[in-house]
Amino acid sequence: MDMERYRVPPQQRAHLDDWNPRDKAGLSKEEGSARLEHLLNDLADLQERLYAEGQQALLIVLQARDAGGKDGTVKKVIGAFNPSGVHIANFKVPTSEEQAHDFLWRVHARVPPLGMIGVFNRSHYEDVLVPRAQGRLDAAATARRLEHIRAFEALLTDARVRVVKFYLHISPEEQRERLQARLDDPTKYWKFNPADLKAREAWEDYTQAYQDVLATSTPEAPWYVIPADHKWFRNLLIAEVLRQTLRNMNPQYPPPTFDPATVQIP
Amino acid sequence: MDMERYRVPPQQRAHLDDWNPRDKAGLSKEEGSARLEHLLNDLADLQERLYAEGQQALLIVLQARDAGGKDGTVKKVIGAFNPSGVHIANFKVPTSEEQAHDFLWRVHARVPPLGMIGVFNRSHYEDVLVPRAQGRLDAAATARRLEHIRAFEALLTDARVRVVKFYLHISPEEQRERLQARLDDPTKYWKFNPADLKAREAWEDYTQAYQDVLATSTPEAPWYVIPADHKWFRNLLIAEVLRQTLRNMNPQYPPPTFDPATVQIP
Repeated sequence: MDMERYRVPPQQRAHLDDWNPRDKAGLSKEEGSARLEHLLNDLADLQERLYAEGQQALLIVLQARDAGGKDGTVKKVIGAFNPSGVHIANFKVPTSEEQAHDFLWRVHARVPPLGMIGVFNRSHYEDVLVPRAQGRLDAAATARRLEHIRAFEALLTDARVRVVKFYLHISPEEQRERLQARLDDPTKYWKFNPADLKAREAWEDYTQAYQDVLATSTPEAPWYVIPADHKWFRNLLIAEVLRQTLRNMNPQYPPPTFDPATVQIP
Repeated sequence: MDMERYRVPPQQRAHLDDWNPRDKAGLSKEEGSARLEHLLNDLADLQERLYAEGQQALLIVLQARDAGGKDGTVKKVIGAFNPSGVHIANFKVPTSEEQAHDFLWRVHARVPPLGMIGVFNRSHYEDVLVPRAQGRLDAAATARRLEHIRAFEALLTDARVRVVKFYLHISPEEQRERLQARLDDPTKYWKFNPADLKAREAWEDYTQAYQDVLATSTPEAPWYVIPADHKWFRNLLIAEVLRQTLRNMNPQYPPPTFDPATVQIP
């Protein structure tokens, strides 16, 4: 699969209309599911090497509109990793302690240590997206925050934390169906928050805000726009990108710190 | 399966010899594996309810000798849960900051919040087991630490954190095979530490120390001795106990905080 089509080129403003939320790269669901099983096995193997090596980390940023599939991605794709090697950070409304610090403070504290894979389910990008879409952050302030984010991600890159960022791209029609499904099933009420409908009404404002944010795509910390109306395709594409990313990191089992030939087990 | 056979009765000293590390409750590996698949699905369902409810937490303590199967248990059994709902804490040699506090300080900080499942891969029990087996903690000091642990776990119980503790019980012969396998495979060297052989030489001292520790089994925070020479049986029995524990906790999807009939999606 040509993953580059979904990668946001650095140094230019992206247009979300350039990607079709219903895209499935010509694959059938059956083909995709078979391929995913294979990919998830590879991911588990690469993660064990990363953990054993202990010299690099991977930070996965997940952003999406409500019902865009962040939780499903964690369950299905991240669920393939050994849980001992994964840290998940769910960023919610900041606590009063968090609000008393700069916007990267709570995020920095949750960066995965070497050997680990970290997942940010929502992230520091919310601190641009939400105020920007709500008109509380002007263009100059937005640019300044994005500059802080670029500098922060460059720091991580220098510290051998690879950053890869996914925007899960759903259509307004698909979001409606998923929200309605939460209203129709009592086991899903807990996922529904009537306040989220405000963001839906401001769909175009959020589109503009996402386009601002996608400008932080760099060769070292790229953004991918993941067509997400088809859950199976979303999982497949994210797994493909993660496998490629981990292969490029090329983690190796470390050499022994002892001479295996001379060890006697008593 | 009769899980009570593996539960350490409260208020009495356990003898590890009462359990056979090679026990498989008369099951074949095929029977066990088929049953495990079913159990893991039930666990995932119960966890989603626990997470949605957000009113209770579960803390799973894993203790074992080297190569006893803690990491394998996390991978195979805990791996069935949605990673968003699980916190894994791997307790290693304490840092200098941790050493400057009481032995429960770092542990307390890692207790799962309501709605979550926490796993302690090694735990506060190490602070009794190791010094006790090495003769650095006398009977009175041991009893005092265990009393602190009982009080701490009672605090958690009152705060709606259910505690369940597993000792993975392997035989010295099985440990030898697993350690040797790590010496024979370059992709496993990283799991081997020659210093661990000291604990193997002190096998009986550790047995005594474990028996001291198992005296903290209470109805609210029970210890289970899990025969662990057969990995599949270890996974099966732990999954059975976890399912029973979660069923007893009886988590429920919460009622809606809004009237689903009146919500209109714009």
